[in-house]
Amino acid sequence: MLRFFILIVFIYLIFSTLSLGQNKLLTEIQNYRKSHEQQIIKEYFQLLSIPNVSSDTANIRRNAELIKQMMVKRGIESQIIETKGNPVVYGKLQVPGATQILMFYAHYDGQPIDPSKWTETEPFKPVIRPGKLAAGSNSPKPIPKSSSETHFKEDWRIYARSASDDKAPIMAMLAAIDAIKSANVPLKNNLKFIFEGEEEAGSRNLRSFCEKNKEILKSDILFICDGPIYYSNDPTLFFGVRGITSIEITVYGPNTNLHSGHFGNWAPNPAMRLAQLLSTMKDDKGKMTIKGFYDSIVPLSERELQALNAIPPYDEHLKKLYGFSQPESGDKNLIEAIQLPSLNVRGLHSGWIGRQARTIIPSRAIASIDIRLVKGNEPGEMVQKVIDHIKSQGFHVVDEEPDLEILMKYPLVAKVTGGRGYKAARTLMDLPISKRVIESLTKYYVQEPVLLPTLGGSVPIYIFNDVFNVPTIGVPIVNHDNNQHQPDENLRIGHLWKGIETFAALILMNNTE
Amino acid sequence: MLRFFILIVFIYLIFSTLSLGQNKLLTEIQNYRKSHEQQIIKEYFQLLSIPNVSSDTANIRRNAELIKQMMVKRGIESQIIETKGNPVVYGKLQVPGATQILMFYAHYDGQPIDPSKWTETEPFKPVIRPGKLAAGSNSPKPIPKSSSETHFKEDWRIYARSASDDKAPIMAMLAAIDAIKSANVPLKNNLKFIFEGEEEAGSRNLRSFCEKNKEILKSDILFICDGPIYYSNDPTLFFGVRGITSIEITVYGPNTNLHSGHFGNWAPNPAMRLAQLLSTMKDDKGKMTIKGFYDSIVPLSERELQALNAIPPYDEHLKKLYGFSQPESGDKNLIEAIQLPSLNVRGLHSGWIGRQARTIIPSRAIASIDIRLVKGNEPGEMVQKVIDHIKSQGFHVVDEEPDLEILMKYPLVAKVTGGRGYKAARTLMDLPISKRVIESLTKYYVQEPVLLPTLGGSVPIYIFNDVFNVPTIGVPIVNHDNNQHQPDENLRIGHLWKGIETFAALILMNNTE
Repeated sequence: MLRFFILIVFIYLIFSTLSLGQNKLLTEIQNYRKSHEQQIIKEYFQLLSIPNVSSDTANIRRNAELIKQMMVKRGIESQIIETKGNPVVYGKLQVPGATQILMFYAHYDGQPIDPSKWTETEPFKPVIRPGKLAAGSNSPKPIPKSSSETHFKEDWRIYARSASDDKAPIMAMLAAIDAIKSANVPLKNNLKFIFEGEEEAGSRNLRSFCEKNKEILKSDILFICDGPIYYSNDPTLFFGVRGITSIEITVYGPNTNLHSGHFGNWAPNPAMRLAQLLSTMKDDKGKMTIKGFYDSIVPLSERELQALNAIPPYDEHLKKLYGFSQPESGDKNLIEAIQLPSLNVRGLHSGWIGRQARTIIPSRAIASIDIRLVKGNEPGEMVQKVIDHIKSQGFHVVDEEPDLEILMKYPLVAKVTGGRGYKAARTLMDLPISKRVIESLTKYYVQEPVLLPTLGGSVPIYIFNDVFNVPTIGVPIVNHDNNQHQPDENLRIGHLWKGIETFAALILMNNTE
Repeated sequence: MLRFFILIVFIYLIFSTLSLGQNKLLTEIQNYRKSHEQQIIKEYFQLLSIPNVSSDTANIRRNAELIKQMMVKRGIESQIIETKGNPVVYGKLQVPGATQILMFYAHYDGQPIDPSKWTETEPFKPVIRPGKLAAGSNSPKPIPKSSSETHFKEDWRIYARSASDDKAPIMAMLAAIDAIKSANVPLKNNLKFIFEGEEEAGSRNLRSFCEKNKEILKSDILFICDGPIYYSNDPTLFFGVRGITSIEITVYGPNTNLHSGHFGNWAPNPAMRLAQLLSTMKDDKGKMTIKGFYDSIVPLSERELQALNAIPPYDEHLKKLYGFSQPESGDKNLIEAIQLPSLNVRGLHSGWIGRQARTIIPSRAIASIDIRLVKGNEPGEMVQKVIDHIKSQGFHVVDEEPDLEILMKYPLVAKVTGGRGYKAARTLMDLPISKRVIESLTKYYVQEPVLLPTLGGSVPIYIFNDVFNVPTIGVPIVNHDNNQHQPDENLRIGHLWKGIETFAALILMNNTE
């Protein structure tokens, strides 16, 4: 009984200390934010008002200049570093006695826009709506500027291009520094910032930028601040991303569209042949049947599996949202499914459909395919496995348009093109620094964040791994229903506030376990 | 020995009488043609110079008027019969003492044109080129009008819309009547002619025309004068055509295109599902695996099988022409293959391919399919077999856009639309009148014509069978490489000459065996 009592007191002491200490920080950060909401939103609106489509180089530079000033204002040593494309804004904040360097990556350019598709607002004139736009309506309407100068409700949303993707982390981390300073909490770590200006245009100069600036970009941990948090809206960290490659398969029939009456049943139909070929690649449980497709996967560690099991599944919610009853992953849920490489038919084309349909045997049929890669998969090797599979189905595979000689020589001919891409990246969750990152958020929120071993999407994080050999961890902060890459992009204000807190916790993370 | 000698003499006498008699007629017809080539071509050019796209009603009427005059000039009682669409030109030529009526069908309208795609000539300004246009060139160039007023070589070609399809039979049969009269051979049969003006627009009023004019359209045999002759260029008769129906299958994935990174492997991919579904419909030998697909076929008779076996196969020639080495019909040649119903994927569509490709899981995938029918197949029953097959693959089949409730209830949903169409037609080759038709050409050419039990293509001949219950036999006369329905439509002049002879032989066919 005494033992039990002592245990209870002990547990109480641990938790109260933890939560009191962290709650104090949380309260300080929140208090700062609450008394500076107007100021934060005003500064953010300034940033969102500068058009940031990658190809608009004049405005891209205005963005870079403003971000540089925003950093300088906070005592961050900042410079604009040129590349062959859009510049990177670099920042450095050194703290006496700090023993580790945290580097934060985000990008300030945004996806191209089609203003005509936005619902009565303009992409670069940010507005606040008191809630999420209902599908196909202009409701709720934007709040007039005067009346929005009150307290901002968490469910309100900022509508503007890049409100989420990816200016939100930039604003949140700078506001976090303000909050920390205002709370008189001493900074513990040296900080570095790189804000890229052409991520949405394919990060074409990111590798050469990293290589050229290898010295000044040294860090102990690189945070990739991009993407939405998990569906549960709980703080999220991701430790990897899938890589990607893509191919196009063309299957040949007659060398011209033929009359389906005169030749139907006899001339080979490439659409049917392509269907037959594709159907051999996957079973009806969604499992790839291409030989060796799963062979090179680096298995998840015990820690990663444990993290996976701790993630609350949102499958039922998403199935209803997207209108289907049966995922193709069999008994695997979404989070488990994206830990595997995938082969996705993203496009099919042959002949004509609908009112354009003609009674012909099409001359060719084409499938466009993307292949998402996980840790261990090399793009070239994975494409070769697909090619070997196509060959095993009796096809002669070529990489350029086959001539008559080839078409007459082989009964089945397939052209396979493409195959460029990049590999996946994954940082181990049980590296000492990974543990400290996880711990900093766990302590802060008194709850372990959602830990994703791999995000489903692809980001060329492998470049940082290749050049710096530095652990990378993703810190998404925005709502998942942010209309990323689409019209009416938005940011839920509650997510911005929580983002500020998340960055404050990371900036103040311990340098020892 | 004596018996053998008598037999030889007997055989010799039969053959010499036959061939002498027929050769005399052949010579007479040929002589007429040789001395009237200028006149025939001049009259034909007049007819080809009047635009005949179905929707051009003013010019359609000019065509009808000219054809009526062309008949009147030859003593044929002629009238223009109105329909709800374009008029039919009707003609009747009665012969004292004739005991059977032969009716000839052709159509005077043509396919729509795209003049910009023609090779330096215009669709309604007929020209003669001294040979077939080489692919992608303007060679051989048209013969200047002055120098073409010489003897026309058989390999020369007339380039104009409807030069083959389907004004050629109209010109040939009227010239045949001139030749017969010129040779002083008495006509033996009453003749009727119907020239339709909207075949290329779907023969929408053909049934009501037939029903309304049932009395005046009575005949003992209806010749469908349309389509190209067999690849061997030998005189050809076809005794049937395939019917046709078509459907469109839509398979559903998520209700919006989804990011293939975030959801690939989990959200169902409709393109893959459609491929898997289609692949279950046909084996790799080209045989349909849909239950009962071949059940309702009325088998070919002994006579039809014998005719099939007598047809020289042109498969090797066509495979080379169309650039493939392996037909999908296994060990069946082309002519055998088109005696069976076919299911042809004429169009596939899902997502995007090529430069438009996006890394998405498409929301839906669509296949457009045409089904050619043979004697015995009912369109509705055949479509039902396909639907039953789709159900047997686990799909819930709907005929209109499924709502969320249906999509959430059934793991696999397919929408199947379409299904209209018409059945095949086939006249038996061993009907007495069929035998007499075959005999008339066999005697004339001292060689049995190519006898096709079924043409691969579809013509609504069933209307004539339904309304008149009359045997129908197809008499194609034009070259198969005539660019039917395409730019640079043409007619080989040798085929026009042979067409005149073929019609002469039919017009003079016996009325008893």
